[in-house]
Amino acid sequence: MVRKTKIVDNFTSEIPEFLDARSLFLSGGSTPRDYLETCISNISSSEETVRAFSHYDLAKARTAADASTLRYRDGCPQSPIDGMPVGIKDIIDTFDMPTQMNNRMYDGYMARADAACVRAVREGGAVIVGKTVTTEFAIGRSGPTVNPHNPLHTPGGSSSGAAAGTASGMFAASFGTQTQGSIIRPASFNGVVGFKPTLNALSTDGVHPLSRTHDHLGVLGQSVGTAWAFARWVGEIAPGQDTNGLGGPLASELDHVPVKRVAVPRTAGLDELDDNSRAAFEAQLDQFRAAGITVVDSFDDPYLADLARRLDHIVDISLRMVAFDMRWPYRTYVERYPDEMGPRLHDLVKLGHEVTLDEYRLMRSERDDLRQRVQELSRSYDAVVLPSSSGPAPEGFEFTGARTLLLYWSFLGFPVFGLPLMEVDGMPFGLQLAGFRGRDFELAQHANWMMRQFG
Amino acid sequence: MVRKTKIVDNFTSEIPEFLDARSLFLSGGSTPRDYLETCISNISSSEETVRAFSHYDLAKARTAADASTLRYRDGCPQSPIDGMPVGIKDIIDTFDMPTQMNNRMYDGYMARADAACVRAVREGGAVIVGKTVTTEFAIGRSGPTVNPHNPLHTPGGSSSGAAAGTASGMFAASFGTQTQGSIIRPASFNGVVGFKPTLNALSTDGVHPLSRTHDHLGVLGQSVGTAWAFARWVGEIAPGQDTNGLGGPLASELDHVPVKRVAVPRTAGLDELDDNSRAAFEAQLDQFRAAGITVVDSFDDPYLADLARRLDHIVDISLRMVAFDMRWPYRTYVERYPDEMGPRLHDLVKLGHEVTLDEYRLMRSERDDLRQRVQELSRSYDAVVLPSSSGPAPEGFEFTGARTLLLYWSFLGFPVFGLPLMEVDGMPFGLQLAGFRGRDFELAQHANWMMRQFG
Repeated sequence: MVRKTKIVDNFTSEIPEFLDARSLFLSGGSTPRDYLETCISNISSSEETVRAFSHYDLAKARTAADASTLRYRDGCPQSPIDGMPVGIKDIIDTFDMPTQMNNRMYDGYMARADAACVRAVREGGAVIVGKTVTTEFAIGRSGPTVNPHNPLHTPGGSSSGAAAGTASGMFAASFGTQTQGSIIRPASFNGVVGFKPTLNALSTDGVHPLSRTHDHLGVLGQSVGTAWAFARWVGEIAPGQDTNGLGGPLASELDHVPVKRVAVPRTAGLDELDDNSRAAFEAQLDQFRAAGITVVDSFDDPYLADLARRLDHIVDISLRMVAFDMRWPYRTYVERYPDEMGPRLHDLVKLGHEVTLDEYRLMRSERDDLRQRVQELSRSYDAVVLPSSSGPAPEGFEFTGARTLLLYWSFLGFPVFGLPLMEVDGMPFGLQLAGFRGRDFELAQHANWMMRQFG
Repeated sequence: MVRKTKIVDNFTSEIPEFLDARSLFLSGGSTPRDYLETCISNISSSEETVRAFSHYDLAKARTAADASTLRYRDGCPQSPIDGMPVGIKDIIDTFDMPTQMNNRMYDGYMARADAACVRAVREGGAVIVGKTVTTEFAIGRSGPTVNPHNPLHTPGGSSSGAAAGTASGMFAASFGTQTQGSIIRPASFNGVVGFKPTLNALSTDGVHPLSRTHDHLGVLGQSVGTAWAFARWVGEIAPGQDTNGLGGPLASELDHVPVKRVAVPRTAGLDELDDNSRAAFEAQLDQFRAAGITVVDSFDDPYLADLARRLDHIVDISLRMVAFDMRWPYRTYVERYPDEMGPRLHDLVKLGHEVTLDEYRLMRSERDDLRQRVQELSRSYDAVVLPSSSGPAPEGFEFTGARTLLLYWSFLGFPVFGLPLMEVDGMPFGLQLAGFRGRDFELAQHANWMMRQFG
């Protein structure tokens, strides 16, 4: 399968599905170096406009791809992601490339060691193409990436370069991080797959923090299979603390497991949709019904209706928890480098000062309670569906899109796939398929089926 | 109360108890600047021999003490630790002093922000005297600190400077960290109080990691009251994730709550004691009995006997978990800087390669099971007592002392106070008072009573 993304000036980039290419690596029909050269050709033609990278190193990538090529030739690939060209979001440490957080404080900063997840990439023999653009510290000022579907529109944030670079065929997948909406939203805007695993399924060691209660390491990828293979490997080598990684077998390809029953909680976040996006979402639900999926609306299920109200309630709570968590290290940053820090960072630190430890503890116990309630849904539903954003990518670059529909699962720490299923006004528009805590593998199998049925 | 520590060449340093001094700050009878000058005088006379600091800045400390003096004069101290001179173990980030891990890789390294706990110190108005010597990355090569009770003996590690500097009256307390035995052992060797709280009660953000499952931030202090006041404040401003800090009120002084019943699990770790130390420990237990405390030996309680066997079993498990956790970032360190890394670090990284994720998961579930079994003891006992080390500080500097008796509580994540209650061969020898998970406040009240009764 070849995904086509319309790039600026009607340029269309093509990148073969990595899992298909890998079969050819194994049979000798292609090599990781060949595959990388396709990515490099896309970088050559698109990067000047798209600006997905804060830094890249094609010589190093070619060396890594050549080493991978030899391993496949010898029949000994190191992992299911050996030879996969990947991007690393620029808040994630790499010892051989700068990690700059899109903030001048970190201009040219070289970490002494790779982040745990980057270490996993290297141990798997994947090919690091470069560091992908993040918004400032993954929450502040945007830029300079544009949306490859229309360069006057935002790519979304904060994993801007990860999403735009995947859409442009510059790599097969990239690490992203999501504190509130930073993986699933840019996945939606760029028409790629986003996967935010269960909180802490993947280690965030060596990832610059915003909020220990909300920060998720995840991936953006060209397909569910590629995203899963990438994340699954990282979960094997660099699982988060007190978690069991992602579950499921390491090596084999994902099955397609039919989704039979989904919940649609009608939260206030849905009111943020424009008319065309709402119509697209309802049409998508109709397609599901037509395919035999039972779609249960919160209007028809009192338990779900109650949950929807509770989800509405956490919009403020989530931000206050994040702001409180941000006391470290951002209080010191704004005091020491006030002029370097964007206005949103100043605002969040100020908000963090308002939150007391007692309030924080209450919010945490509210979260624990809500986690149990949402996990209960797994008795009756395969997944929960909502749009991945309030619409397609808005024009301009200041506003990277609403977060309301996204932060529910970030607050709860539940796994989500963002699926590029819809289109509105000629731009991509994603669907969120949310699963249950610690059951990432089941969710991936459902997401895989969803894309085959409706993608 | 004035603690006297015999320093080399019969020098005796004196430092008033901080909590007593604080009453004088409030009444106008003394000032934080006066108190600091006593510490500085001890530094002047002892630091050349003791070498507790990797870096110190007396000008900055005086400025901070003067600011604190003004706050007390105005009747507005910022916290219960306002004006407390403290040391910061040199694996903990400070933005205004180098953080060097006792390894050349980090020579002159300046962090961009304070660790969360250091931020808490500053927000409380405590006076940072300097960075205290750690063994290499808190687990490797030792030096250059010596034991102030006898300069030919080790101060213990890895919180070497924290313990020796507290004993020498250079500060009232210091941050230490304990992965297996690194707070309680040097506390024992230097005759000071050590407090290792429940795992993650205090944030380790900005502390260079060894093992996310074992790393504890804690304190060494001149007394139980000072250590508690320091840790309690840090737990308020910088609690660890998913914990509720330390519990107990913030401001008032600790009560003395009698210990009525203690458990003594006769683990194999006790076989490591030399004869004099064993005699001292048994004499201490006799003192407890004479004071009316019920001392239950594992010989007389089958549940306890079973626990003792299980504790023996975790000695290897604990080290294998630590080695596995150390994959990040130490695998990258030993590959990139093989010549900079001491032999023990090479060995541990090699050991970590032997541990599979499946084994690691099994070890974690064994830990979870044992946690429940040990927590069950809280129904019958106030605390568990064991020696803090296998004896007093050994001569020489290579060997910083056995870890066996210490790692039980590090593995479990349970709180421990190390109390300077015993003396062997003219050197200090500590007693561990271990409490129950999340019940640090109760333990501190018991420890406070213990020191008043037997100290």
